Amino acid sequence: MLTYSFEDIKPEPLYLHLYKCIKNDILNGVLLPKTKLPSKRSFAKNLGVSNITVENAYAQLQAEGYIYSVPKKGFYVTEIPKAVHKIKDQQTEKNIKKHIQNSYIDVSNQYEVDLVSNRTHTDNFPFSIWAKLMREIISEKSSELMEKSPWGGIMELRSAISTHLKQFRNIEVEPEQIITGAGTEYLYTLIIQLLGYNKIYAVEDPGYKKVAQIYKSNNVACEYIPIDNSGIIIEELEKHHADIAHISPSHHYPTGIVTPISRRYEILGWASREKGRYIIEDDYDSEFRLAGRPIPTLQSIDVMECVIYINTFTKSLAPTIRISYMVLPKKLLERFYDKLSFYSCTISNFEQYTLARFIKDGYFEKHINRMRNYYKNVHNKLMKAIKNSKLADISTISEEGSGLHFLLKIQTELSDKEYIEICRRNKINVSCLSQYYNEDNDNNIDRQHILIVNYSGIRLEDVSRTVELLCRPIL
Amino acid sequence: MLTYSFEDIKPEPLYLHLYKCIKNDILNGVLLPKTKLPSKRSFAKNLGVSNITVENAYAQLQAEGYIYSVPKKGFYVTEIPKAVHKIKDQQTEKNIKKHIQNSYIDVSNQYEVDLVSNRTHTDNFPFSIWAKLMREIISEKSSELMEKSPWGGIMELRSAISTHLKQFRNIEVEPEQIITGAGTEYLYTLIIQLLGYNKIYAVEDPGYKKVAQIYKSNNVACEYIPIDNSGIIIEELEKHHADIAHISPSHHYPTGIVTPISRRYEILGWASREKGRYIIEDDYDSEFRLAGRPIPTLQSIDVMECVIYINTFTKSLAPTIRISYMVLPKKLLERFYDKLSFYSCTISNFEQYTLARFIKDGYFEKHINRMRNYYKNVHNKLMKAIKNSKLADISTISEEGSGLHFLLKIQTELSDKEYIEICRRNKINVSCLSQYYNEDNDNNIDRQHILIVNYSGIRLEDVSRTVELLCRPIL
Repeated sequence: MLTYSFEDIKPEPLYLHLYKCIKNDILNGVLLPKTKLPSKRSFAKNLGVSNITVENAYAQLQAEGYIYSVPKKGFYVTEIPKAVHKIKDQQTEKNIKKHIQNSYIDVSNQYEVDLVSNRTHTDNFPFSIWAKLMREIISEKSSELMEKSPWGGIMELRSAISTHLKQFRNIEVEPEQIITGAGTEYLYTLIIQLLGYNKIYAVEDPGYKKVAQIYKSNNVACEYIPIDNSGIIIEELEKHHADIAHISPSHHYPTGIVTPISRRYEILGWASREKGRYIIEDDYDSEFRLAGRPIPTLQSIDVMECVIYINTFTKSLAPTIRISYMVLPKKLLERFYDKLSFYSCTISNFEQYTLARFIKDGYFEKHINRMRNYYKNVHNKLMKAIKNSKLADISTISEEGSGLHFLLKIQTELSDKEYIEICRRNKINVSCLSQYYNEDNDNNIDRQHILIVNYSGIRLEDVSRTVELLCRPIL
Repeated sequence: MLTYSFEDIKPEPLYLHLYKCIKNDILNGVLLPKTKLPSKRSFAKNLGVSNITVENAYAQLQAEGYIYSVPKKGFYVTEIPKAVHKIKDQQTEKNIKKHIQNSYIDVSNQYEVDLVSNRTHTDNFPFSIWAKLMREIISEKSSELMEKSPWGGIMELRSAISTHLKQFRNIEVEPEQIITGAGTEYLYTLIIQLLGYNKIYAVEDPGYKKVAQIYKSNNVACEYIPIDNSGIIIEELEKHHADIAHISPSHHYPTGIVTPISRRYEILGWASREKGRYIIEDDYDSEFRLAGRPIPTLQSIDVMECVIYINTFTKSLAPTIRISYMVLPKKLLERFYDKLSFYSCTISNFEQYTLARFIKDGYFEKHINRMRNYYKNVHNKLMKAIKNSKLADISTISEEGSGLHFLLKIQTELSDKEYIEICRRNKINVSCLSQYYNEDNDNNIDRQHILIVNYSGIRLEDVSRTVELLCRPIL
């Protein structure tokens, strides 16, 4: 009969030790397939352990499929297919190490000044207030915090957003029309599932590259539509047979173009001409328009229910707050409910409660106002510094009064690539308008030599240094 | 010349009042397209306001596209297309109200006992410890909290998960192979983008319906593969030309079947026979296996790098904690990096830091152990109560020793639908095995009259009442 030693074994249950011994023998071929194992009783006696020990070991082996039982006969060893041999791939191992690095490199830390990533500076986030609210939520909402969030988000947050939208964007919607999600990227993928994979999605060219990337990654047709000085060109939408237009009429990136009211109506007209046409109005960053009153959104003048409005708190608050939302027209809300409400909300309700209170108690408004002032100061100081620099005579600033960036056209013999490279060597990260077009077209002189200056990440005290670094290539 | 009154106006800036007056006149057709507006200076004089007031009003009107400027000539009214008329849809309005309700109905609150939603009871979540850790993170990590999370998640959390996986599932992986996301549902959609839209995804039949729902919603081919007593059937995978098998070998829902080691090797063999075949090993709930040691995962015995392991903290901790993760084989990690690392991480790093510490400080292990004991007690009490009830003589319990549910086969004349309906009228929510098959097949007697008893949501003190309610239909 099989015999195993129970002396000097690890401090583990006896049955576990026995299980391991038998399993090893099966895997090593000592116990061949179809071998009958000893009966529990006699095995226990032989090993000097209790029946229950053998029983537990057999139960575990059986559960894992190493042995099988034949009623009234006993236990037998299973035939286990041989595992294939491990392939060591040196190259993959090497790449893994590369990814370890890539995963943790924060681009903004590689440079002294970063004018590319348009993120807000974290210094300015009212962290102590946020922390205070988090503490309040922890102590007041212990039971709510443990509940699952409804699919569209908790009502407190959606109500707060609805009130905010009314006050700041003149958008009048029911809280129920607001669907929250962990980032706009996630919401785009929900929109695709909502509107359909057989649709043609149109994005602006030039434009924010990630939007097209997401459509392509989600396997839907994505067309690049040229823009003119008023925004997306309607004729081009028609020409490309677009069904869905994904646009930023209040703040086009990177040109800064604001679509005037006449074009807005034309876009709405385009959408209403054919059934199934929709507009995704990406209002990203609209809080930081620095001059005049905000321009009416497409959502607020849309009477045909063909606009999906989308915005995020990631930019207006802090990159770590991954809360975005979309406003569905009522007719789409029903479709969303039928098709997609099986998805769980992707935001923890703890963050939802905190943000809801942050908005409701007026902190969000205060924060926006403070940030607008701050950015205005950075902007003005930056303009002045450019005027007093070597750039003054060889550059033109163009800004459309929206958002936290402007274009700087430079008279230079350097190609865009060369300019960027010299900048990077000087520890300043900058991008050019030409990079935001779908295809590089070096022959198109209008697109060349135009730097995009995202100043939301520059500290006030770093403005002079920024301009100094920007001048380096032309010295 | 145009004249507007500035008397008795709202407490708002003068320029804003002027802007509104002109805008109204444009929208109402008082000011016709191409009309020239007065020069700033003379208009200001006429209205008795400062030049800057008119200038600001014109700037705003121009920014919004109501007027345009002709250099050296002045400002003109834009031609604005007429807006289409609002369509009032009574039906939609009514449905909206329905959705308001639907959005907030928590199914578990409609019933006295809920045996369907397999969620953990929030009473058992160590909230005070979680809150303590949150407070610690708020005060210690203020700067890290404001940084954006790397695309795969913060390293602290991925390391903690990696250590946990080694200790509890014998899975040895680098933290970099772990990709975190806000819920498994979100991770499934990433996997589709990673593996491809042209692949055939196979799910278990019967099985957890949401999985198939997500594949369909993401527009990929989804095949239902029958299972036998050992799990998914290899021949059926071949027959359906499946490329990707999405399975739960350690805990099949709802049958509770545990796939034995021999079948596991066969599944791995299936995957390795053709290039591009992958297994998604959904290990959901595996922490709560109540008997014996956990069974080796496919991931831990896979040497061909074709298993994507996936698990969540939503079930093991609390529904509000939307943190899930997947473990990518190294060869897929590179593809993920190339194709999908542009996506931002969907979890706020605040929750990531809190969970990382919760695991690292041993609280997660303690919680799991406590919950296993708790569930064991509920389970035993439930078994006893059934034995002492009217169900004893007319039912058979089948459980495969895994997870937090079992099957209860009842001898009854009632159809499954009738049984469920009577239960619901008695305020107990229960589901039947037949509902988890792709197609209802009322002729298949093996599938009928089998209740699924998810007991994770029952309080210990509610066990007797639960059994009492379950007996109602057969009284």
